Amino acid sequence: MTLRVDDTGFGGIRLTQDTDFFCYGTDAVLLADFASGNRHVRAADLGTNNGVIPLIMSVLTGIEYFAGIERDRDAAALAERNVRDNQLEGRIGIFNCDILEVPEHLAASSFDAVTANPPYFPRRAGSGNVRLPLHAARHETSASLDDFVRCAAYLLRPRGAFYLVHRPERLVDIMTSCRAHELEPKVMRLVCPRAGQPPNMVLLECRRKGGRELKILPDLIVRSEDGSRSEEMERIYGQAASGGFHGLR
Amino acid sequence: MTLRVDDTGFGGIRLTQDTDFFCYGTDAVLLADFASGNRHVRAADLGTNNGVIPLIMSVLTGIEYFAGIERDRDAAALAERNVRDNQLEGRIGIFNCDILEVPEHLAASSFDAVTANPPYFPRRAGSGNVRLPLHAARHETSASLDDFVRCAAYLLRPRGAFYLVHRPERLVDIMTSCRAHELEPKVMRLVCPRAGQPPNMVLLECRRKGGRELKILPDLIVRSEDGSRSEEMERIYGQAASGGFHGLR
Repeated sequence: MTLRVDDTGFGGIRLTQDTDFFCYGTDAVLLADFASGNRHVRAADLGTNNGVIPLIMSVLTGIEYFAGIERDRDAAALAERNVRDNQLEGRIGIFNCDILEVPEHLAASSFDAVTANPPYFPRRAGSGNVRLPLHAARHETSASLDDFVRCAAYLLRPRGAFYLVHRPERLVDIMTSCRAHELEPKVMRLVCPRAGQPPNMVLLECRRKGGRELKILPDLIVRSEDGSRSEEMERIYGQAASGGFHGLR
Repeated sequence: MTLRVDDTGFGGIRLTQDTDFFCYGTDAVLLADFASGNRHVRAADLGTNNGVIPLIMSVLTGIEYFAGIERDRDAAALAERNVRDNQLEGRIGIFNCDILEVPEHLAASSFDAVTANPPYFPRRAGSGNVRLPLHAARHETSASLDDFVRCAAYLLRPRGAFYLVHRPERLVDIMTSCRAHELEPKVMRLVCPRAGQPPNMVLLECRRKGGRELKILPDLIVRSEDGSRSEEMERIYGQAASGGFHGLR
């Protein structure tokens, strides 16, 4: 375990990460921002890792309670530590359990938002050492994409929102799974490294038992032509000042 | 019936259109161009209207035979006339039948490409006069989107390509239907009126019994900032000269 403390740039949150494991990236930040566009009271994050999404969203929005689910024991301990270090014990609870065990810990239809940044690559025979935590964060091991979607559908009240970030290659898997679990995709946004390049991420907002009509937003462009952060990325990463959070570590 | 003869700009094709009915638009041209990226020998167009897609693709590619299916009698007659006027009788056959009746006319697994520009709006009670042909071209009347997809799956050999242009709002319907009929979406491209605007069309290439991995291409931008055709649209509409077709009317 190699711990590193980072200043995330969001309202003074400081985050301890295990650099042998999985450090938070643009995908988590973009998902947190995407999911912060609507007002929610009770949220859950599936596969929360070190808790980065509950931490950012608790700062950016008036969310009252955030449940973070993490199967890996060390990652869940790190998430607990980050919650304490940022004095968010009253608003974030960390559950060290598998996605498949969530119904043993949390009641059905008891959340109005669920976020997920699931492993990007499907389970395949011979895809590395499945016992390493970094492998588990990147590949589906115990829970598949469909299990994440089923879990979100279980937790959400009708009209509750499911926010997902994933790879464009999996878009058909995502859409068929979401519709099968009555989480209707309502808003989609592709994330492109630069204008004119193919997307490398997709952000999706689904609504439980929502109507069948998808709205596709203009692409989110990460970098300008000169390689610097785009205006929109500046806005997203510049929310620290207005976050209203003053937690100290 | 109000007939108008247009020079399409594709290899000298002249197209008679019924302006009371449905004139070909950017969607048909973009679909024909999108589907012309791969080499095909036998193709079918579902809901061919005045035959614009078979006409353009017969000019742009070395396709040997193109079956155009059209339910509306007047539109099918117009398609026949356009085929004759452009001396393409040996390469394009028009079938005046419903999508649901295709198996009575064409053999299963006998095509390597199918194109479709189906009605964009789902069937709904009270959505206008369903007996008007313009209504039928825009709304699902007898055949639904799922019927178009089922028909394409029927006609295609394994690995055969299905090319579709549709509205982004229907993307979840499209993807779930395609996967259900084993037409796996493989390549997607969104079409945006201008850079930075949301898309108003989606182009999709599926493969019958293809592997599960979607590639999303960079957006196709229709107009530049100054409102003129983008470079790519100039390329697409500029293929007339190299089309190698010299049909006269």
